[in-house]
Amino acid sequence: MINWSSLTPAGQTEALARPVMKNSDSLRVTVADILATIRQQGDAAVLEYTRKFDCASLNSLPLSVAKRDELATRVSADVKDALLVAFNNVKQFHEAQKPQDITLTTTPGVVCEQRFTALDAVGLYIPGGSAPLPSTVMMLGVPALVAGCERKVLCTPPNQAGEIAPEIALAASLCGIEEIYLCGGAQAIAAMAFGTESIAKVDKIFGPGNSFVTEAKQQVSQRADGAAIDMPAGPSEVLVLADGNANAAFVASDLLSQAEHGPDSQAILVSDSEALIEATKAQVELQLAKLSRNSIASRAMENARYILTGNISEAVLVSNAYAPEHLIVQTDNARELLTDIKYAGSIFVGQWSPESAGDYASGTNHVLPTYGYARNYSSLGLLDFMRRFTVQELSADGMRNLGPAIMKLASAEGLDAHEQAVALRMAELEKGNEQ
Amino acid sequence: MINWSSLTPAGQTEALARPVMKNSDSLRVTVADILATIRQQGDAAVLEYTRKFDCASLNSLPLSVAKRDELATRVSADVKDALLVAFNNVKQFHEAQKPQDITLTTTPGVVCEQRFTALDAVGLYIPGGSAPLPSTVMMLGVPALVAGCERKVLCTPPNQAGEIAPEIALAASLCGIEEIYLCGGAQAIAAMAFGTESIAKVDKIFGPGNSFVTEAKQQVSQRADGAAIDMPAGPSEVLVLADGNANAAFVASDLLSQAEHGPDSQAILVSDSEALIEATKAQVELQLAKLSRNSIASRAMENARYILTGNISEAVLVSNAYAPEHLIVQTDNARELLTDIKYAGSIFVGQWSPESAGDYASGTNHVLPTYGYARNYSSLGLLDFMRRFTVQELSADGMRNLGPAIMKLASAEGLDAHEQAVALRMAELEKGNEQ
Repeated sequence: MINWSSLTPAGQTEALARPVMKNSDSLRVTVADILATIRQQGDAAVLEYTRKFDCASLNSLPLSVAKRDELATRVSADVKDALLVAFNNVKQFHEAQKPQDITLTTTPGVVCEQRFTALDAVGLYIPGGSAPLPSTVMMLGVPALVAGCERKVLCTPPNQAGEIAPEIALAASLCGIEEIYLCGGAQAIAAMAFGTESIAKVDKIFGPGNSFVTEAKQQVSQRADGAAIDMPAGPSEVLVLADGNANAAFVASDLLSQAEHGPDSQAILVSDSEALIEATKAQVELQLAKLSRNSIASRAMENARYILTGNISEAVLVSNAYAPEHLIVQTDNARELLTDIKYAGSIFVGQWSPESAGDYASGTNHVLPTYGYARNYSSLGLLDFMRRFTVQELSADGMRNLGPAIMKLASAEGLDAHEQAVALRMAELEKGNEQ
Repeated sequence: MINWSSLTPAGQTEALARPVMKNSDSLRVTVADILATIRQQGDAAVLEYTRKFDCASLNSLPLSVAKRDELATRVSADVKDALLVAFNNVKQFHEAQKPQDITLTTTPGVVCEQRFTALDAVGLYIPGGSAPLPSTVMMLGVPALVAGCERKVLCTPPNQAGEIAPEIALAASLCGIEEIYLCGGAQAIAAMAFGTESIAKVDKIFGPGNSFVTEAKQQVSQRADGAAIDMPAGPSEVLVLADGNANAAFVASDLLSQAEHGPDSQAILVSDSEALIEATKAQVELQLAKLSRNSIASRAMENARYILTGNISEAVLVSNAYAPEHLIVQTDNARELLTDIKYAGSIFVGQWSPESAGDYASGTNHVLPTYGYARNYSSLGLLDFMRRFTVQELSADGMRNLGPAIMKLASAEGLDAHEQAVALRMAELEKGNEQ
């Protein structure tokens, strides 16, 4: 247990330090090689990597809509029902995010507009691994659907049978994703960013992945011939802010929910109650023993931090200093604390709001800025699947009204041609040529 | 003159190709060295670079508010009036962009919110050079002001006298920018991203600059201890789409407005009228001769392209393929073409809407995605100075309603602790412990 007020400022910084992400030079070079290979050799190279790492017999990348739908029928009725509940909530919440175009007359005759439009082609990456992640398909696929993106491209590594999990297929179907390609890793990111014979280039790539995927996303986002990406990546994390009245079993279960994601997950409890911290620690031990992903969660919990503060206000300051991806507030009057909370990817208010709710089904997106990026990046939302652009139109009167100011400013910046573009028009207007 | 329909697809791609941006390895290493030096040595190193490149006698970085205000009084009354006109239009248009927070009950007892909040600290970079750029101060400073960013930090290289242009000082004053530091180049970007003794770290850096600044922004945006940036950079560009009724003198002046920005500026005319193209070329020669920045504009115009299409619909396709930063439409019924135009940073509709209007005073932002990034990045706007985050709160009823679906999905993904976090709560509720 860390007693916050006993720490020096440097000690406080250290208590909240995240593990250093080391993108080794060798990872960087390996991924750069994969990117270059995919750019040069296209599908053949993607297939070769896929045969090597995922499915030895794969000979083509696309998974047909017919196959998607056939796989989707294999999902059990209760899982299907649960997916539908989640899908509807996520869809509702992202529909509510639809932005309004703006039209404003700033000066008589000068109309300015801001318009929103869906990105044309988005690439959604879904990692493989031991268990399927239909929730991530929804978190990426629903906003793409609601935005109205013309092309929704999903890449995910095939299993040994050259297929994908039925739950992934069903979630893709719900989101109207018709382009599914059986590939993963840096090769999938490269294929979506640069395009291959079978996968047309996309404009922006979304989704989580391992260190190869993360590095590949970063590299393609730095290239003019690549693609934009959703946000920078980092290990997942939760900070639970709890007072003495919190339920220690709930708090422990929330810390462990984070811990089971991976051995590098960060779980932090900040409380003004020593008794609550001790009770939570005991609950962690109890609950940890029963988890199927016990070894992963145990490793993550070795780095868990329990921070004792003098009062709840101080606990809020600790949370602000950390800027957690997930912030769970289990205190009396939890909602009242929101005004003082500055940075978090998503905030879970009160004891009935576990992280699991947002991870799966409440409606909010589970793709969130982590690793302190909650200070300067947004939670994933509908706007990330759209572009904003402006339109302006000056009438002859608008030019008359605004022309003199434009000319004066262009002149002050020494830009003659800018001034001239207005002067020529003003001269025409003086001649009465309004058309 | 390029006859579009006579080109092969490859020829068409080549006709719209942008110059390759070569970020040389030496630039990369030089900038990385500057970044490392600023991180280690802080103010002393920033001052040393500044003395070397900008002002030999500078001994401290901040420019006081008193000095800012004193400099601002030196602006002539007519330039001040023009700046105020522009400021008010830009302010109005960015105020109109204020987003609405969302609160939605997705399932009875499950409330999801999306909230917007200003970024805390933004860094605004204003290049030095031959002429001051008060318009850029406004384009960055006004949205920061309207968003309500707590800290607005402006870095700009000092002149020989260790001061800044009065127009910059006035624009900064209008935008309520109180933190001004006399430094430029990669060292200024590093100082804002990492922080020094006198410049506290910022969350996001905005603004244009030379190749050192651009490379520095790119590098700090890739570091977890750095800062976010506004958008990727590239040479500025305009595409004018005009029919036979367009005024060739206006068209030429718009091409030249772009050309005078720099020798790497791109200017493209697409028209279905050979006569208009020829008349524009003649006008370009005439007007070019009179420009003070003739040598810069001439070099840019050497790479100008004049593309003849079979009709206006084809011209729109050419524009969509190019995805220009600035698109000027000077055709009959220009507004009707908007429905077919897919990508552009900002669109200028009709003959009274020159690029100069948006560059200075109409109200739209002049920081726009260039180099084809109009496909997947947005024009700068108020939202770039804000963050979105989500909040969710489940009541006991919300947990009852949604809990079973969450547990089912967590189980399908093999995440026991996620399931357990809900199971524990459901068990409490079954015991009647709602609190």
